[in-house]
Amino acid sequence: MKVFLDCIPCFLKQALEATRLATQETKLQQKTMRVVLERLAKESWDTSPPHIGRTVHRLVQEVTGNPDPYAPLKKESNDTALRLYPIWEERIKKADDPFEMAVRLALAGNMIDFGARPGERIDIEREIEAVMQSPLDKEALETFKQMVMSAKRILFLGDNAGEIVFDKFLLKQIGPEKITYVVKAKPIINDATMEDAKAVSLTEMVSVIDNGSDYPGTVLESCSKEFRKLYQEADLVVAKGQGNYETLSDAERSIVFLLKVKCPVIARDMGKEVGDLVIHLHRVYI
Amino acid sequence: MKVFLDCIPCFLKQALEATRLATQETKLQQKTMRVVLERLAKESWDTSPPHIGRTVHRLVQEVTGNPDPYAPLKKESNDTALRLYPIWEERIKKADDPFEMAVRLALAGNMIDFGARPGERIDIEREIEAVMQSPLDKEALETFKQMVMSAKRILFLGDNAGEIVFDKFLLKQIGPEKITYVVKAKPIINDATMEDAKAVSLTEMVSVIDNGSDYPGTVLESCSKEFRKLYQEADLVVAKGQGNYETLSDAERSIVFLLKVKCPVIARDMGKEVGDLVIHLHRVYI
Repeated sequence: MKVFLDCIPCFLKQALEATRLATQETKLQQKTMRVVLERLAKESWDTSPPHIGRTVHRLVQEVTGNPDPYAPLKKESNDTALRLYPIWEERIKKADDPFEMAVRLALAGNMIDFGARPGERIDIEREIEAVMQSPLDKEALETFKQMVMSAKRILFLGDNAGEIVFDKFLLKQIGPEKITYVVKAKPIINDATMEDAKAVSLTEMVSVIDNGSDYPGTVLESCSKEFRKLYQEADLVVAKGQGNYETLSDAERSIVFLLKVKCPVIARDMGKEVGDLVIHLHRVYI
Repeated sequence: MKVFLDCIPCFLKQALEATRLATQETKLQQKTMRVVLERLAKESWDTSPPHIGRTVHRLVQEVTGNPDPYAPLKKESNDTALRLYPIWEERIKKADDPFEMAVRLALAGNMIDFGARPGERIDIEREIEAVMQSPLDKEALETFKQMVMSAKRILFLGDNAGEIVFDKFLLKQIGPEKITYVVKAKPIINDATMEDAKAVSLTEMVSVIDNGSDYPGTVLESCSKEFRKLYQEADLVVAKGQGNYETLSDAERSIVFLLKVKCPVIARDMGKEVGDLVIHLHRVYI
């Protein structure tokens, strides 16, 4: 998916949030914003939003000298999610359809996204309860279930810190032994890295690798050989969040996207509404 | 009031809205946004938001070649307001406190502001009904009433097209013969100009002048001598909207600001909440 002009003000909003997290020095904040404006003016916009997102957030990191502005928020998201985990572990045991509940929890976790909604803080507990009641495409859910059950090797592209805890329910339903879970190689926005995967003990449940890249999405040409091999050979790729959709929506292989629509540009591109829960089956027949 | 960093993404959002109103050519839209980004990167931010607002909107006008992108929206706002006028003219006759209702209508009209809320369209009718029920500082209202009643020469700084129709109720309550109503000298965002004042027959009710300037606020040094004379000599200045507050909040004379708070930056500066109705008495004792 390409950058729309609507993304430009949003990148500035993201840059400002990241800058304020990175430094409290007003002059440095101003300088950072100026550098971002200047770069955005020159940058090619004929690309996907995560391409520009990476540029913007790297600039903020460089100019402020803070390599991981979202570190405290990532920790907070992980901690909150870990606190809620046992509550939902109990509820899923008693659920009529544990698979559906696990998918809903994975979608609820996708709200923890500081890229898509800069400046907004989310009440995760309330969000999960809302997601449990939201409409969900049952046909897509059933197809997705059949796909994961018949697949032997699944590549699961994770998204954000905190969110990775809520993915655990789904990983359990699918069967952790079939799954390789993917995180980012370096800090970018609040995307989960290996550090987060370890902090929430995801590494004890499934095989976790980093993709060798630091785009807030999955830009194949920037990923490691190891990742690309797994991507090619997997029976199924499951991709969480808007960033993965933005970078892989035209992929040459089948992918199931799981996301909650958080911005009007994605909504328009997908023919959905902001707030919708989406199980998007991108199918390529070769 | 000075520009905050939060204003920067908002200026980009305003620029995008204005650009899309100005031209449908995608390439020209992109070019315009790039020019605005480049300029914002270089521009001094040690100034009031309407200073940068003017620069941004002038750039959009120049690059797109459209001298008045908001012309159709201004006409629409005027027409809608004129349609609602007789309904409220009847209601105000039966009101317990016609002065309060007139102030509320003037505040309701202030919602018609494409600068403060780019991209949002407002349901004016619903907005007015809501404003009738919103909390209002009765002490400030009473003081304001005494001030307008005792003043002999009042300079009334108007704000937006459409809104100027809703000001008529208050002008009538105050006494039109005491008032000089001020509009902008050239199109800027959806600020009212003499053309709007004539279109809604405001010119038949009060003396209307333009301020000789095209800032979306009141930047005294950019205004005509005639305006500045009236500004100095008036017993009372009444100023509508955020733009006038942003440029005159530190004025060396007493001013009554009437506005509805529409952005978090103004809210913070005034110690108010977004959505609040404000009668702000800026008093200078010489």
